[in-house]
Formats: sequence, structure tokens, C-alpha cells
Amino acid sequence: MNRATMNLDQAALDKIHSHSLEILRDVGIRFPSEKALSLFKKHGFKVVGSMVHFEEKDIAAALATVPAAFTVEARNPSRNIHIGGTDYVMAPGYGPPFIIEPTGEKRNATLADVHQFCKLVQTSKYLDFNSSIVVQPHDVPSEIAHLDILLATLTLTDKPMMGSSASEVAAHDSLKMAEITWGKLNRPVMLSLIDSLSPLQYATQSVEALMVYAEAGQPVIIHSACSLGSTGPITIAGSLVISNATTLAGICLSQLINPATPVVYGLGGSPTDMRKGAYVNASPEDAKHVAISAALANYYKMPCRGQGALTESFCLDYQAGMESAVMLTVAALSGVHVGLHNCGTYGSMLAMSYEKFIADEDLCGSLKKLMQPLELTDDALAIDLIKEMGTSGNYLIQSHTLERCRNEFFIPDLNIRTLHSSWLEMEPREITARARHLIENRLEEYEKPEIDPALEKKLRRYVNECQL
Amino acid sequence: MNRATMNLDQAALDKIHSHSLEILRDVGIRFPSEKALSLFKKHGFKVVGSMVHFEEKDIAAALATVPAAFTVEARNPSRNIHIGGTDYVMAPGYGPPFIIEPTGEKRNATLADVHQFCKLVQTSKYLDFNSSIVVQPHDVPSEIAHLDILLATLTLTDKPMMGSSASEVAAHDSLKMAEITWGKLNRPVMLSLIDSLSPLQYATQSVEALMVYAEAGQPVIIHSACSLGSTGPITIAGSLVISNATTLAGICLSQLINPATPVVYGLGGSPTDMRKGAYVNASPEDAKHVAISAALANYYKMPCRGQGALTESFCLDYQAGMESAVMLTVAALSGVHVGLHNCGTYGSMLAMSYEKFIADEDLCGSLKKLMQPLELTDDALAIDLIKEMGTSGNYLIQSHTLERCRNEFFIPDLNIRTLHSSWLEMEPREITARARHLIENRLEEYEKPEIDPALEKKLRRYVNECQL
Repeated sequence: MNRATMNLDQAALDKIHSHSLEILRDVGIRFPSEKALSLFKKHGFKVVGSMVHFEEKDIAAALATVPAAFTVEARNPSRNIHIGGTDYVMAPGYGPPFIIEPTGEKRNATLADVHQFCKLVQTSKYLDFNSSIVVQPHDVPSEIAHLDILLATLTLTDKPMMGSSASEVAAHDSLKMAEITWGKLNRPVMLSLIDSLSPLQYATQSVEALMVYAEAGQPVIIHSACSLGSTGPITIAGSLVISNATTLAGICLSQLINPATPVVYGLGGSPTDMRKGAYVNASPEDAKHVAISAALANYYKMPCRGQGALTESFCLDYQAGMESAVMLTVAALSGVHVGLHNCGTYGSMLAMSYEKFIADEDLCGSLKKLMQPLELTDDALAIDLIKEMGTSGNYLIQSHTLERCRNEFFIPDLNIRTLHSSWLEMEPREITARARHLIENRLEEYEKPEIDPALEKKLRRYVNECQL
Repeated sequence: MNRATMNLDQAALDKIHSHSLEILRDVGIRFPSEKALSLFKKHGFKVVGSMVHFEEKDIAAALATVPAAFTVEARNPSRNIHIGGTDYVMAPGYGPPFIIEPTGEKRNATLADVHQFCKLVQTSKYLDFNSSIVVQPHDVPSEIAHLDILLATLTLTDKPMMGSSASEVAAHDSLKMAEITWGKLNRPVMLSLIDSLSPLQYATQSVEALMVYAEAGQPVIIHSACSLGSTGPITIAGSLVISNATTLAGICLSQLINPATPVVYGLGGSPTDMRKGAYVNASPEDAKHVAISAALANYYKMPCRGQGALTESFCLDYQAGMESAVMLTVAALSGVHVGLHNCGTYGSMLAMSYEKFIADEDLCGSLKKLMQPLELTDDALAIDLIKEMGTSGNYLIQSHTLERCRNEFFIPDLNIRTLHSSWLEMEPREITARARHLIENRLEEYEKPEIDPALEKKLRRYVNECQL
């Protein structure tokens, strides 16, 4: 049972799907790229201006070749990630231009921040791969920032990477640097995010980045989201139809280019604040989209992306914890496979925060523990012990307890478990200050993962040459 | 899909059930009450000392008569609650002896606090019924505190009440005051909590309170929980067997006394902090018990209780929000029907907090919104509007948006949705101070619900006579 999707039976999903097909056929999706349009034309699609119209059979053909699961290789093979099935892999924030400091003030993010976050990702017990743009650095021209970020992620971490989708060039650069690292790219070594625009269209850069990655057989997340009441209908049902149609069109393009290109299904939706016209993140409507997108991805037999630990708050208060936890718990329980923004973001993805990153890690770890299958072995059931103990509550001194006590329970790093009197005397007591301490320790303990010096040199040379 | 209970298929649930039956048969459950023991003997149960042994047929017979759902009547019939099916009804904290103030200091709770919380429950948009002991007041002798609390809840609110389970006398008093209010009790008008002791036993008072309520056909929550590694095995599987056996024994007693007495299934479990021997609340292990207890209740075709918005924190920080939200989101999605402790508790139920109460209300409201079925009407799907708008993002000025904009989205009361610059200038900015303002407004706006003066007089007379 998942009560967030209670009435989404097969008939309801069929209904959303068939209305999406109706929009794909009658309205179409805007693909403002000559390359994409000529490909669609070549395959016999109806193209009017930059609007591409899709028939049911086109979508069915695409869905037939999309894989249900795949693996993304890391530079360190022990860190490969599997996407699909029962797995839920997590990455930190994606794209905020600012850092919010413990004082609450915000400042521009820099390349130094990118480096710090790479170190935190590398040492994270719970994050599985790195974002392609954990923050947008202001001290590097935006056209070439992806090169510095790719270099940082490939040298400071050995977890799987994301490619840049900033442009066709950035996608090519991502592939080139991956080829330097892995050689010929005959299997997935990165995951990239292709965002559509709402309603019913893609930006030129996104389409062309999508085409580059699909051609190389590299996995993409294709994600669509409306602001409910401004770039889409105010209703969740209307938003689902628009975003599902748009994502399906992107999936279709990926499979036309290269059948069986791995794709992660992405669909979100956020209310518009009617007084300000801005969108609001981390609402129950956002969480509902997460649960439904997992149901839709399952309907299409594809892996699914979730929205992450989002919040409208700007500090480590109850709201930040509550909103982040509702979003991620819904993702975890509903069957999301890939989490972006799972650590560190504040204020509708306005800013990253080091302290929030640490706090969100406890959340990610808790949920990973929660999702572990229940152990039902004889030793876990402990029936003989239960019979022996009867109504005596002396389990603490039993060998069954002692043998398991170090690893049985989740232990948080930031969250406290203490007496009220001890908490009152804690120094520092406030959660932001405690998080600051943990970050300092983490960055001190960070060790750069092994990398062949020749490889690092080649990567640096590539970046330097591109930036000339 | 619910990934917290992924491997709990029918076979896994059968396994937990059959091991529980094995313990019920071979070890039995301690019922230290002559009344209960003689009843069990009368029905042919094997009784050894105060241990009662159960056969599979006894449990099957009890489960056959327990209703799958029922309604509890409120003093104001528009506030009746339905327990079971897709409903999730919520009550505030249950039992903390202290209040934590905004400074972080704790003080003893008083009867004045009981009154304040009754007013907050009455004015709550999200709480459905009142706890029988939202705090334990220190300024009233504990043997008679239930009378003052019952009087407060019956006069200051018109939402459904809980009966007291402090003792057989307290249960009788609860029934008497209900009879004064409703007349003959031929339908459920209160819900009471019967906690077992772990492992495998009940306290005398609890058994006898259970017997009083069952005789009167008044619903009870029968709840069992271990501290993993001290009052039960360290493993969740072992904890499930013990607590499920204990709860099933209580259900059996309720149905022996009065077949078809409504019962809510309750099962929890919390890790033991191995360094301190104390139990830890709001862990992922606690959340896992919530998800599994909903699966077990569903297996038994009974309504289910959840653990509420618990936290180990003592202030409105990220941890409080995160832990409360993980606990409640798991309950909401997994199919819990009755939430106790859903608003206001800190520190493993050590204390209530007015500010946490307000913060938890936004969480309860968000989850109630999230659980609403997706509206899939033609108007919600808005296909004609989507076709008309095409790639234009001008939904904000459409009548479809305007007609729905006031009620479509969840609007939080405490949580902020604002620009970073506005937040920096907010006065007060800190969440605890903002919550304080909301409480003051709520208490000022409170209006006592209508009550027949003669009824109120009779209730007061009953309380006064009992307290002589």
C-alpha cells in the first residue's frame, strides 16, 4: 500500500497516458533544434515549424527499447551504481548559484566551493554519485565552468559522475573527458540531466545535449516539471499530462537516435505562489508529484528520478528538516531510483549550504536503513532466545545482543540522542554550529582517491586547451 | 509499492504470524489479574500461574470477530471519526510529564497546560481527536488527574475523546462521564490506549482497564513495543514476534469479553542506546516498525496505530523536523489509521512543547493533503485548456486557475515561503518565536464549543464527587 498513490490504479495511469498521447498527437512538443527536427522528419514524424507531433506507435516503440535498469561505472569500480529495481542512488544539490552561510547571509558560490563539495561527496557514507553542478561557480565564465567542474569531480572523487548538459559543447567535453578516463565509451560511465521547458517544449541546448549523450549511449534523466497555475494548469492532473507528454517526447528522441539508450524518467511539479508568481518547492503537491512519477515510471517499466531534499527554508530549522524529510521519504517509499538534490539545498534550490549538506546526510542514511529488507533468518527471529527469556527483559546481556550491537542500528552523525540535561550543557548546542564542526572534520580527514598521475595530467591538459 | 515493506510478502507475514503463535502456545503471555485469569480459565485456556497459553484456534476466533473499521462518535457529530479504510486520524502527544519552553528549559506540566492543549486541539485544522493525557499534570494527584483531564476534554473540545487507561477505576470514570454526556453507550464514543509491557506481559491496571472498555464495547488500541536489545531481541524480526504475540493475546482477551469490540492494532519498537541502556525514539528502526505494523494490521484486517511525530531533539531544529516527518510520512504512506503523538512531543516523549505542536500541525496538514486521492475529472485534467495554451506559459491569467487558486494548494501556517531578502528582514525570524505568535493568536481566538449548561454541571458534579 502507498497511500500517496491510492487511487492510481491501472485505469487511472492509462487515463493519464492516453491524454498525454492526445496532447503529443494534437499539440506536439517544441524541439527548437534543426538537428532534432531533421531527425524527426527523417523518421516520418509530422513536423510543423519546430513542433513535432507524435503518434501512439512512436511512443510505444520508444518505450519498448528503453531499459528497465542499468549500471553506471565509476572510476573506482567498487563504487559503480545500479539504477532501477530496488535501488535508490543519491546525489547532492544540482545548480544553486549561492552559498548560504551559518549566519543566514548568502554569497556567490565559487570554484573553491565545488572542490569542497566534491570532497564531501567523496567522504559521504550515503551519497552514491556526484552532481554535475553541485553549485554554479561565479568566479569562472559560465561557458567553461563545466570543464573545471568535470576535472574536480574526476580527480577529487572516484564515485560516478554526471555529464554537463549546459550545451552541446559541454556534453561533448563531458564525453571527451570520460574517454580520457575510461577509453572507448562502450558502457555507461556518466548520467546527465536533460530538463525540458514547460509547457511542452525543450530549449535548444538541452535537445542538443540530449542528442550527444544518446548518440554515445550514455544515460540521461529526462525531466519535465510545471509550475502549477503558471507554466501549466493549476491541477496536478493537468500538470501530469503536460509533463508526461514532454518527457515521453524526449524519451522518443533518445531511442530514435540510439535504441536502448538508458533513460531515467523524470516528472515534477510545484505550486505557483499566486501572490508572487514564484514557484514553491517542497510542498505536499511536490511530494505528490514524486509519488506519482514513481508510479508512472513503473507503468513504463523505467527507472525514476525524485526531487530530493528540498525546502523553502534558509536555515537548519524544523521546516528544513520537515520538508526535506517528507520529500525524501515519499521518494524512498514510492520507489524512486535516482535522487538529485538529496543533500545541501535551501530556499527552492536558491543556495547550497555546507551545514544542510551534513544534516541531509543523516536523513539519507536513515532512509537507506529504512529501505533495507527485513532480515527474517532464524538468527534474526531469535525464537529460541525469546522462549528462553520468557517475560524477563534481560536481553542486554545476551550474546545475541552483544554479537549484533555494533551494526544493528543506524547511528546518526549530527542528530543527537542524549538526555535533556546533557543537551542543555552541550557546547556547541545549536545544530548549525555542530554541523560546522562535522564539516571541518570531514574536510580534514579527506584523502584524495588514487588516480594515475598520467591520467590526471591528460585531464588537466584537456581542460587547459579548451579554456585557451 | 512501499519500499519500507518490500520483502514483506504473504509468506513473510505468515512466518511472523506462525512464530508469534508458537510463542503464544509455548511461552504464553503474563496477565497478572485474577479477573482476566479466571475468564481465560472459564474459556478453557491453559493457565500456569499468571501465564496464559493460546492455541492457534483461539487467535483465529478472536481475529474473526474484530471489526475492520468503526466510527467513534464526537460530542459534535460533525466531528465523528472513522477508523479504518483509507482514513488516517490524528491526536496530539500522549503522556509527557514535562513542558519544554522556548528557552530549552523544561518544567513540570500542569492542569493549566491540559486546558491550553485542549484549546489547541479544538482549534486545530488537522487534529481529529484529543489524547486522554496530552500531558501528565503535576499539580493534581495522579490517581484523580484523569477526572480533570476528562472534564477538560469534554467541555473545552467537542472532538472525540480518549478514555483513561490509568486503572480500572479510571476506565470506569471515563465510561461514567461518557454516559453522562451520551446516555447509554450502545456505540463507540471514545478510544482508549492499552499498552502491554515487554516482553510478553501486561500490567494489572492495563488488563483491567482493557476488560472494562471491552465489556462496554468501547474501542481500544492494543499496543506492544520492545526496546530492541533490552526488553526484546536486538533484531526487528525478534521484536516483531514478541510484540505481535503480545498484542494478539490482548486482542483475544477483548474478543472473549465482548466479541466484535473494536480494536486498533498497535506494534512499535525502538533501539536501545547500548551506551546508556535507554531507548531511542524516531530512528529508522522505529519507522520500519511503523511500516511493518501497518502491513501486519492489514494482514489481520484490522485498523492500525502509528507512532506519531517523535523526535530525540529538544527544540525546533532540523532534527525535530526530519525525525517527526520521517515517522509521520512512513505512517501516512504505509496505511496507518490512527496517529497518537502526532503533535507536540520532544525528546523521546519526555516533554510537550507548544511551539512543536504548531510546527507539527504543518506536517500533519501536508500529509493529509498528500494522501488526498488525485482528482482525475475532466476539469482537473484540463485537456482543452492544455490544447489551447500549447507552448504558452500564461496559465496564471486563465479562469481555470482563478477559479481554483484559493483552495488548490496546501498553505502552511508556520513554515515560510518567501524570498531570502525578506526572510533576512523578518521580525521575528526564528521559527520558535514565530510559532509562539501563532499559539498566542490561536488561544486568543479560541471559542468554547457549545455545551448544554446542565450537562456541564453534571460532569463537574461527577468529578467533584469522585475527588472528595
